[in-house]
Parts: sequence; C-alpha cells; structure tokens
Amino acid sequence: MNKRKICVVITARPSYSRIKTALTAIRNHPSLELQLVVAGSALLDRYGNAVDYIENDGFKIDAKVFMVLEGENKTSMAKTTGLGVMELANTFYNLKPDAVVTIADRFETLATSIAASYQNIPLIHIQGGEVTGNIDEKVRHANTKLADIHLVASEDAKLRVIKMGEDANYVFNTGCPSIDIAYKVSKSPKLNFNPITKYGGVGHTINWQEGYVVVMQHPVTTEYHQAKENVLTTLKVIHELGIPAFWFWPNVDAGADGTSNGIRSYREIHKPENIHFFKNMIPEDFLRLLINSKCLVGNSSVGIRECAYLGVPVINIGTRQNGRARGNNVMDVSYKQDEIKSGILNRIEAKNIISNDTLYGDGNSGDKIANIIAEVELRFHKTISY
Amino acid sequence: MNKRKICVVITARPSYSRIKTALTAIRNHPSLELQLVVAGSALLDRYGNAVDYIENDGFKIDAKVFMVLEGENKTSMAKTTGLGVMELANTFYNLKPDAVVTIADRFETLATSIAASYQNIPLIHIQGGEVTGNIDEKVRHANTKLADIHLVASEDAKLRVIKMGEDANYVFNTGCPSIDIAYKVSKSPKLNFNPITKYGGVGHTINWQEGYVVVMQHPVTTEYHQAKENVLTTLKVIHELGIPAFWFWPNVDAGADGTSNGIRSYREIHKPENIHFFKNMIPEDFLRLLINSKCLVGNSSVGIRECAYLGVPVINIGTRQNGRARGNNVMDVSYKQDEIKSGILNRIEAKNIISNDTLYGDGNSGDKIANIIAEVELRFHKTISY
Amino acid sequence: MNKRKICVVITARPSYSRIKTALTAIRNHPSLELQLVVAGSALLDRYGNAVDYIENDGFKIDAKVFMVLEGENKTSMAKTTGLGVMELANTFYNLKPDAVVTIADRFETLATSIAASYQNIPLIHIQGGEVTGNIDEKVRHANTKLADIHLVASEDAKLRVIKMGEDANYVFNTGCPSIDIAYKVSKSPKLNFNPITKYGGVGHTINWQEGYVVVMQHPVTTEYHQAKENVLTTLKVIHELGIPAFWFWPNVDAGADGTSNGIRSYREIHKPENIHFFKNMIPEDFLRLLINSKCLVGNSSVGIRECAYLGVPVINIGTRQNGRARGNNVMDVSYKQDEIKSGILNRIEAKNIISNDTLYGDGNSGDKIANIIAEVELRFHKTISY
Amino acid sequence: MNKRKICVVITARPSYSRIKTALTAIRNHPSLELQLVVAGSALLDRYGNAVDYIENDGFKIDAKVFMVLEGENKTSMAKTTGLGVMELANTFYNLKPDAVVTIADRFETLATSIAASYQNIPLIHIQGGEVTGNIDEKVRHANTKLADIHLVASEDAKLRVIKMGEDANYVFNTGCPSIDIAYKVSKSPKLNFNPITKYGGVGHTINWQEGYVVVMQHPVTTEYHQAKENVLTTLKVIHELGIPAFWFWPNVDAGADGTSNGIRSYREIHKPENIHFFKNMIPEDFLRLLINSKCLVGNSSVGIRECAYLGVPVINIGTRQNGRARGNNVMDVSYKQDEIKSGILNRIEAKNIISNDTLYGDGNSGDKIANIIAEVELRFHKTISY
Repeated sequence: MNKRKICVVITARPSYSRIKTALTAIRNHPSLELQLVVAGSALLDRYGNAVDYIENDGFKIDAKVFMVLEGENKTSMAKTTGLGVMELANTFYNLKPDAVVTIADRFETLATSIAASYQNIPLIHIQGGEVTGNIDEKVRHANTKLADIHLVASEDAKLRVIKMGEDANYVFNTGCPSIDIAYKVSKSPKLNFNPITKYGGVGHTINWQEGYVVVMQHPVTTEYHQAKENVLTTLKVIHELGIPAFWFWPNVDAGADGTSNGIRSYREIHKPENIHFFKNMIPEDFLRLLINSKCLVGNSSVGIRECAYLGVPVINIGTRQNGRARGNNVMDVSYKQDEIKSGILNRIEAKNIISNDTLYGDGNSGDKIANIIAEVELRFHKTISY
Repeated sequence: MNKRKICVVITARPSYSRIKTALTAIRNHPSLELQLVVAGSALLDRYGNAVDYIENDGFKIDAKVFMVLEGENKTSMAKTTGLGVMELANTFYNLKPDAVVTIADRFETLATSIAASYQNIPLIHIQGGEVTGNIDEKVRHANTKLADIHLVASEDAKLRVIKMGEDANYVFNTGCPSIDIAYKVSKSPKLNFNPITKYGGVGHTINWQEGYVVVMQHPVTTEYHQAKENVLTTLKVIHELGIPAFWFWPNVDAGADGTSNGIRSYREIHKPENIHFFKNMIPEDFLRLLINSKCLVGNSSVGIRECAYLGVPVINIGTRQNGRARGNNVMDVSYKQDEIKSGILNRIEAKNIISNDTLYGDGNSGDKIANIIAEVELRFHKTISY
Repeated sequence: MNKRKICVVITARPSYSRIKTALTAIRNHPSLELQLVVAGSALLDRYGNAVDYIENDGFKIDAKVFMVLEGENKTSMAKTTGLGVMELANTFYNLKPDAVVTIADRFETLATSIAASYQNIPLIHIQGGEVTGNIDEKVRHANTKLADIHLVASEDAKLRVIKMGEDANYVFNTGCPSIDIAYKVSKSPKLNFNPITKYGGVGHTINWQEGYVVVMQHPVTTEYHQAKENVLTTLKVIHELGIPAFWFWPNVDAGADGTSNGIRSYREIHKPENIHFFKNMIPEDFLRLLINSKCLVGNSSVGIRECAYLGVPVINIGTRQNGRARGNNVMDVSYKQDEIKSGILNRIEAKNIISNDTLYGDGNSGDKIANIIAEVELRFHKTISY
Repeated sequence: MNKRKICVVITARPSYSRIKTALTAIRNHPSLELQLVVAGSALLDRYGNAVDYIENDGFKIDAKVFMVLEGENKTSMAKTTGLGVMELANTFYNLKPDAVVTIADRFETLATSIAASYQNIPLIHIQGGEVTGNIDEKVRHANTKLADIHLVASEDAKLRVIKMGEDANYVFNTGCPSIDIAYKVSKSPKLNFNPITKYGGVGHTINWQEGYVVVMQHPVTTEYHQAKENVLTTLKVIHELGIPAFWFWPNVDAGADGTSNGIRSYREIHKPENIHFFKNMIPEDFLRLLINSKCLVGNSSVGIRECAYLGVPVINIGTRQNGRARGNNVMDVSYKQDEIKSGILNRIEAKNIISNDTLYGDGNSGDKIANIIAEVELRFHKTISY
C-alpha cells in the first residue's frame, strides 16, 4: 500500500512548538509519509529562526518558502499572505501531497488553506473552533470553512466547529500537541539548566535562583497603535515590582515593531536591572522555566494551554485570549497598570492552590493526530450540514 | 458630513451583471461615494471584456488590476487569488475606502476579502449563505467568516449565515440586484432586437424567429476533467433535437479551457446548423432573450434567480446549483444525454404553467443595499455568536 | 569530484527546440549534472505544451513553474516576468545549482537572469550579441549585462558582446544548437511522414504532395496593434497565390492574441482551401518539412538560422529579424501585400541557386556548450572591460 | 500643449537625496508634470522612512508601493525585485506616464526598468555608466540596456555608456543632482545645529565640538558573510582612535542585517564612549556635518561625489566604490585594521591641502535634467550602435 503523503506547513516558531509531537508521530507512522514545508517567519533570524530548531530536531525539510514582506502596517500582512498563496500553490503542485495540514490561526495560515483547497487537495485544519475576537478569529473560522477535516484541541472547540455547519464525522478532538511536551516535561520538572548561561539573551544578569516570573506579551493586531503603549505598561509594572523576570520577545505580525520598539526603547532608557530578555528557547526548556516560575505574565496562549496542564499561575493581559476556554490558573486583567500589578501579586500567592487541568489534552495528542490522518477519508468535497 | 467611501471590486462579467443596480444606487446615494475596482477576468477580452460594458454604462473606474494567470489546471486559480491579494492590498491602501464590498463566491473573491479584512477595513459580503457543494461553497462561507456585514439574497441564506455564528444585527436580506434588472425588463418584455445582427457571434445564422432555446453551461471546478465531456453531451442533445439555439460561452475558471475546447472542437467537426454562439450580451438583452425563449438549458445561476422571477423554464444540468433554493420553473437533471433531452422537452411543454416567484427579490435590491451600507455601523471587529 | 549542477530554464517551446542538443550533451557529460526547470508558456496547452515533448524526449524535470499572466496588453508581459523572478528565485534557492543557463531574448528570460545573478549564482547566457531592434534586443543585451559567461551563436555576435564591455575570456562562439538538429536531419532529408495524418491540425486537407510553402509569423511586440493587420495581409497573399501551405500558430507574447485572432477570424470567414494549420511539430519533422518546401514565409528566426544551414529560401517579413546576420537564402520584405507576393515567387524560383551556410554553426554546438560549461571558471563577479 | 508626464520612482532614502533637486526642477518646469512613486525601503521606518522627508519637502506622492521582502539572504533581494516589477507594472498602467525615470543601480531599480520598458514607456536612466564591480554594476548596466535615454553624472560615465552601444544623441552628462545641494550648502557651510539635540540617535553624548569624524559603511552584497566582520573592524579602529565619531546606519540590502547586527552587538558589548549613532539626517544637515568634519570614513558614494565637490577628506574602505572616478580627496584602503587606522590619520592631516573638484557636477544638475527631459525625443525603440 502506498503511504499517504501528508504535507505540513510551518510558518512561525510558535506553530512549530505546538505541532512538534504530531510531526514526529506522522513521520513515524507506518502508513504516512511526512512532507515538511517551512515558510514565512519560521525562516527568519529576526523571529527566532525556527528552521534551525526544526533541523536540529532531525526533521528533513522538503521546501523552504520566503514570503514575509517588510513593513510597519497591515498591508504587509495581506501581501505576505498573497505571496504565500502563490508560492505554496507551486510547492504543493510539485510535492503532490495526499493532504495538507494548516495550523491554527496566524494570518498567513490562510495562504496554506487556499493553496491546498483550490487545488482540490484535502485540507486538514488543526485547532479550529476557538474564540479570540480579532483578526485571528476571522482567519481561524475561514480556515475551518476551507478545510475538509478538523482536528481540534478541546470539546468546546469541537462543538463550535460542528455548529458552524461542519460534518461531525470529520471533526475530532485530539487535544493540543503542545500538551504532549508539557506531559513529558512534567515527569522531570526540575530546572536542569542555567537559562542565561545556556541562552545568552540581553539585559542584566538577574538573580533568578530565588524565584522569578516569566513575561511574554504579543501585539494584538486590531489594536495596532497601542502595542507599544501596552508593552510599556507591563515593563513598568515588572520593573517597579523588582521581581526577577525572564522576558521573551514577541513573534512577528503587523504590530511586532510596536512591541519590539517599546521593549527596545524601555531598555535603552531605563536599563531595568531585574529583567533579562530572551529571543526564544527550545520548548522543553521553556516549559521547565515556567513550571519553576512564580507565574507567567502576558497574553500568550501558553498561559491558557500548557500552563493549565502544568498548574502554572497566569496573569492574562488584555483581549488576545478572549473567549478561549481556560482553567482556574488564569486571572484576566486589562492593560491598566494597577490591575496588572495586583494580579501578579495575587497569582504568586495562588501558586499552591492551583490544580492541573486536562481541558486542552492529556499528553497524547501527537499520536491521536497521526492515527486519525492515517485513517480518515481524505475528501475534498463537502457541503454545509444545514 | 463626509460621504462613506465604498469600494466595490468586480472580478468577472457575471458579478457585474449581478451587482449593477446596486452600483448605481451606491453612486447616486447622497451619503455614499463609489470607488470602483475592476480586476481579473473582467478586464480580459477572452472572457467578454466586462470592463467595456462597465465604462459604457457610465461608471468611472478607480483602478484596474490585472491578476489572472494562464493555465489549464487549478494551480493557476490559486495563484490568481494570491496575486489578487497582493495587488488589491495595495489598491485599498491607496484608495483608503471606509468599506469594501466583495461579491458572492468566485475563487478570486477571497482575494478581496483578505486584502480588506487584514487591513482592518470593514468588509461587506454580498450573497453569502447559499449552498452549492463545491469549491464555490468553501469560498463563499470563508468570505462570510472574513466579512463584517452580510447582504444576502434570500431568507434561506439569511438563516444560514446567522446559524454559522454571525451576529443577526449585521445580516440583511436584500434580495439579489439581478432581479432589479429582471423586474425592469419584465415591464417591456418584447424582443426588440435581432440577436445575430446586434451581437455577431459565430456559427450558423439560425432561424430563431419561430422559437429557440438558450444554453449556458459552465465548467464545474471539482469535476475538472469532465468539463469537456459534459459540454459535448449537451451539444449533442441540442444538435440532435434540432431546435434553434443561442449558446453562450462560459466564463473563466480552471475548467474553462475544457468547456471552451469542447465547444470549439464540436463546432469544428460537426458544424451544428441549429446553434449560434455568443460571447456575451448586455444583461437587458440577455433577459429579454430568455423571456422569449422556450427554455434555458445549462447550469447558470441565472436559471435559479432571474428565471424564477421571470417564469422562464429551466433545465438545470448537474451539481453546480445544488442546494440553492429554487422555484417551480427549474427541473434538475444529471449529465446523461437522455435525461437532458427529455428534460428539455418537458420544460418546453411546461412554459405556460410556470408561475413567477420572488424568492430572490422583488426588484428593489439595489436601493436596499445602498441604504443599508449608508446606515449600518461599519465595524471590523467581530466574534462568533456562540 | 563533484559534478557541476547546471540548471537550465526553458520558458517556451522555441527555446526548447533551440537548446535541445545542448541539454542532451549536458546530461551526458561526465562532470555535469543537469537540473531542468520548465516554466512559463512551455507548460501551457495553448502554446504547444512543450513540456510534453521534453518529457517524451526523456528529460527529467526538476521543477515546473506556472507564471504566465493572461491579458491582451504589455502589462501582462511585465507581470509575468516579475512573477517569474519571484518563483525562480525560490526554485534556485531550493535546487542550489552551480550555474544557471538563460536562453536568448524572450521577455521572461530576464526573470531567470535576475533570480540567478541576484543570488550570486554564476549566470550563463546563450545566444547574446545579436541585433533585432525591439524589446527582444533590450532584453537580450540586459541579459548579457547580468550574465557572467556568454555562449553566442556567431562570430558577429561574439564581437558585439566583447564590444559591450564583456571580458573576452568568457565569450565563446559555440554556434546555435538548433543547427545540430538541422545537421542530423540534413543527412536523411526525405519527408518520411504525412504531416496531416501525423499532426492533425485544422483547416483543409491540402494537396501538399506537389509542393508547398511553410508559414510562421509571430507578432512583433512593439507594433502590438498591427499584429492582426499584418497577419491578415500574409494570409491574404497565401490565399490568393493558391499554393498549398502549412501554417504554424505563433508562440505567446503580448501580441499573441492579435495574431491568433487574425488567423482565427480569417479562417472563420474565408475558409482558405489551400492552407492547413498546425500548432507545432517535433523539430526533426519540422525541419524535414522545411527542407522539402518551396520556401518559408514569415518572420521566424528559423528562417535566419536553420534555413541558412539547410539552404531553404526564406521570405522574411518585417522588422523582427532586423540586424541578425543572414545568408543568401533570405529575402527581406515589408508588410506590404505586393512585396510579400513577389518575394515568395522570387524565392520559389531561387531555390536551386541557394548555397548552404554555416554562419550559425556546423552541427556540433551542443557538445561545445557542454564542454565549455564543464571547464570554464564559474565566476559571478565581473566588471566592465573599459 | 500637453505637459509631459514624467514618473519618477524612488525606492530608497539615498536615491531621494541624490535626485531631489531634479524632482523640484521637473515639478516646476512649465512643460513637465511630475508623477512621484515612492516604493520599497523608502516607505519603511527601519530604513529611515524617506517617505516622510519627501512629504515634508512638499512633494505630492501619486502612489506608494510596498514590495520589500524580509530575509537575511539574497533570495529576498531577488523576490523584492520581482514583486516590484508586478506592482510597478500596474502602477504605470494606471498612471500612464510619457516617460519613467529609474535611478542609478540599487537592485530594485531593475524592477522600474522592466515595468516601464516592457510596456513601451520611454525609460530614462539616471547615473548609468559608472563602474563598481559587484551586483550594483550588473544592475546599472542592465538598466542602461533597457533605457532609451541616459542622463549620466560625469564625462567618464558618458563615454562608457556610448561605448556600450548606446546612441550618443541620447546620452547626456548632467552631473549629479546631489552636487546641487552641496553647492547650496557650500555657500553657508557653518554647522548651524547641534546634531544630537536635533536628531537624537543612540549611544554616548560625544564631545564633538572639538572635532569629529563621520562614518558610513554599507554592506557589500557579493561579500555577504563578511559584512559583519568588516563593520566590526571599522568599529574597533574608531573606538581605539578615540576620536569623537558620528556613525550612520546602513541602508537596506541583503547584508543589511549583517552590518546592523555587527553594530548592535559591538554597542551592546563595548559601549564605545566616543561614538554616537544616527539613522539619518536631512541632506543639508548631513553635508554641513561633513564639511565641518575631520574626514569621512566608510564606503559611501557621498565620499566620491559630494566630498569631492566640498573638499572633504575620505577614507574609502574596500571594493564598493571601485572603478568610480574620484578626486584627490579620497584615499582607498582595504578592510585591514591598520590600513584603516593609518588612512584616517593621513586624511585628517590632509584636510587643508585638498582642493575642490567638479568632476561630478557644478551645482546645476537638477535644472539640466529637467530641461533635457522636456526637450528630448521620448522614443522607446532603439538598437545597438554597432
């Protein structure tokens, strides 16, 4: 029997972290053949060079696609997506996959979806059905409408995809593969490396051994002009609290320069002595860093997913994760300085009473995904259920 | 008060016919300013040169965008869309509209939707919520998911869009503007021109004065390789029946060359003496031709919409109009020769007993659309309703 | 020792015919590895589907690149080139060739040149240094200026490339590979097939056995609007002369539709009983057809090159071959009806007194090209010689 | 009489500085109408946001074109150019200029040249004929071969363009418009502003009042991987010499990140107390800064042109300006630390004995350019002169 050729497109560092165990499971599955396309910001040094991690993890890359346009406005997001459609159409034409996998909801994932579905290649969408309330949500649901098969991360999401008119026979709750890594890490949670020694980064050499927080704040696309102001507020709070902090740079989208510029200018002027900045980390190290932290601050989806499973307290700032199902580890606050500050103090206190929660998976998603892809009917013709 | 700048993107001849009265109503509305972009196959001679009709109708075109790739496969559909995103992103950036209007479900309409929504420009989708069961349906529902405001053509469609999770306050049943033209034409239905003298075309000078049928058969994208075979079957039936027939060439998509080549080769070999071929006609003439015909044969949406209103019998062949609400004028048949033949004979008989039906509008859609666009809140931030 | 990876980009049917023996020689050379990219109109049915001939000839294609935009104007030529740059840049990035070969002077060849030279890949230009006097000439010389190594087809061309400031050590007169095929065919010149039986085509089944002419007329880009008029003149002359004629459709560029429409409309109206139309032929058959013809009519470079070697009389119409060195087989005429007519009659008479001429090669160009590519220094850094 | 519509495309900050007086002269000329397109890095904050200066100078921009791809390799240079062709083709199609002006030799200028020449729009190339020895030179001469009219900056360049086969009747030595600004500034050379107060920048507040040097070092494309190393050498020399220095960031191309990262990392680690960094300055201020400096260090063309006119000593490092005619103000050195160091000391000494030189113009180029454009025959059909 011929193996099914499954083409997965990775367009950004966080998407790779999220899908990694599924990639391994697809590659190892006896009736699947993995075709890996690395594209967009995953190829760029400025956004953490995910491609190096992917190759270091032993994956063979079948095609690399440069498609990110420079720019400080939303026009470049649209153009990047258009260019992605053109390039990926050609890539799929030459690779001839039996199915294409598009991941989640970043703006450029719609390029993967169009390039596949317009060529009648069955499209598998991972992590649809969630609710966030900005352009990501529009993209996510549009992906759902172009996709033929849906592998979602929670029961909540499954019900929503079906409600949107998708055939329930093609909607599967697999949990999120990111939880697989969290599961593995939770078996040996000790912080077995020195973050600064191992990853360098910039800023002061903070005294993290006595306890620290982790910060990860991304720009919110539809609030473009506020990205800089918002990150400055969080910087000020962390700086004033004086708690040692590891701060991770955001990944790319239209507001990236706003947030990045905010961080850069704050550092230049205030030289905050309690903050150390990293570009990125391998996922296992990052999760171990979280487990041993006092709490996570920001608006990363890691706070909603992995931290639920790991029982790490989270101050979730602003609207970026709106509408996503969450565990009791999360406290939501606005962009106001005092809310953020008291939230952080509250969460640090709460660390001991937070329970672990499997609402985004139980640590076996990668295998579930590979098994479903190996067995599901690979159709490309569908119609709405009502 | 500043006028709202409403940018409408026309990418194909049939989209223009469908939206024309709304364009006029937008242009004439005291609080709206029309920005007209003509793109894609609407600019190309090979597909009927819609741009000439648009200019002849007195519309000022703000930008022309060449974006159609040549090709005989689906790759070019995807690439055309990608290129459209890039070009239209720039066009909208320079025109700075207050809202963008995308029409229906052709593959390249998704380019308009992405270029607008990614730049946070409120997106108005016309004629979502219908069901057809191929790539058009995927595109239509993806448009719905990117759009902020929905102007649909029937009650059926309205309910479906709301069910998909859209806020009912932003979903309006305006009917289809194509019915506005049908309404006007129905007031003076006499065939007041000689089609062959006025439009030329190719093929024999048929004896249409004693009665004729009209044929319009488009390729169905997901059945690409069958496009040629299917059109040959219909050609054979019409040829054998010997009824004088006016045949219209299909518009562009991945199968266009299949269908066109089928027609070309049949003409070359059989020189059917009862068929005359046209590229296209102004809508009023075309509708008058339909009113005075024995029936319409093929798979055009005109059969579902305008012919319902006008009471013209229709043999609808194959799956292209699957799932669209229809009146009692339509008889559905498969691609089989005998079904098509007996269907045509049945419909010719039925002409006198068919009633008119306003399920797609009552002749006032253009004004309704302009009025809603002038008054609705132009938001670009939405979230699913469940 | 590692083989040199030589990437040849074929973008059109005539380029393939011209380069074919060099492709074979590169593939068979012990120290070269052929990477073959087929792009542009070479992939399209409408322009003769060169890709099928390439595969039938046993070449393995490493990448196919769809890049041709539809359109009736010069804008689409520019856009096709721009798209070609983007796609070929990615293709070269993934194939990692040691050198790229760009052929002659079609507008899209500049895409190959930019994609290679901007990535510091040594660029080999085939058939620079010729003179024709329209956009082709601009493109050809721009290719020369981007190229590092020049393989030209005549002494005349060699001197011109050196005069333009190129280092004489990197300019080689190899002759034209198309002459290699002419050489081979000239060894067994008998017309060993029935053209109509073997190739079909359209139009009347002419009585060619008693003698015939061959016609091949391409649009001239800078005289876009005259393409149709010019081809109609030639059609009229051939029709009136009544000599049996095999007519070949033109290949794609901005005027293609003008010429094609001219041919199509003339056929439709006049049904010329002495003309049979072909899309294309394998080169050997085409050359044999020429050898056995009374003369070649039109503006194809075949008249200048292969026909010089084969001693076939040629009426060269208009400006397209201006400035190219030519043998005594060629008579140049304007687009005027009477000039063309008397020219044809003159050439038919002259057939017996025309001598063969090796000014474009002696039949061994393919091997010469491969040997030079195997041994020349593959530099990508050059400067003008004065 | 209709005014000639002259479309000038500015793709980068330095191109604007160079063309500015010609833009003004075109705008003010009674028989010319200026169409201004701002594209590429000239639109991007990261590269100095030239668009703001252009608008502040009172120019009306007819179209903005986003086309720069992100990336750390040469692939993005090629893709940016391809995208530029596509976008500019459309821009010219809609603007319908009588002639297009492309400036100098940056990689993306070839996009302007293709988009114009392929559409038969007369192309005017500014500052061809110079020699530099890397990809810039290939681009510059390719521009010459696509251009119909040549406005060069020196006698040397004029002779070279004619030697390449261009018709001498269409080659004009206008001098370089950048000298016009130098001429004006030389009339009131006093440093009438505090650079740090007016422009901010980053780094130490150096004690420049007692004398300073200016540094401007761009990456050299074909030596991509050395960009970082080379800039680090220069940084080290300047740091060790301890002379107060104003350092300007490089503009964009494939090595930009190499050079920028070099600067950034050196600052991070060594915090050089005698260097202050600027992104950019208005040309007049920059020239006044140069006049009052001890010397210019780096590889900018400003050292070759403006500094010749102004009599400012220049240490020209490396190959970037190879082959350009130069005055006695310039001393050329390699990338070696000791050569750079002793060169700087030599030049500082030489300041008083350097004479001014008009080899790149006498201060009236802008008007000369406008006058020629107003009167020259705007042809688009040319052929090589030999």
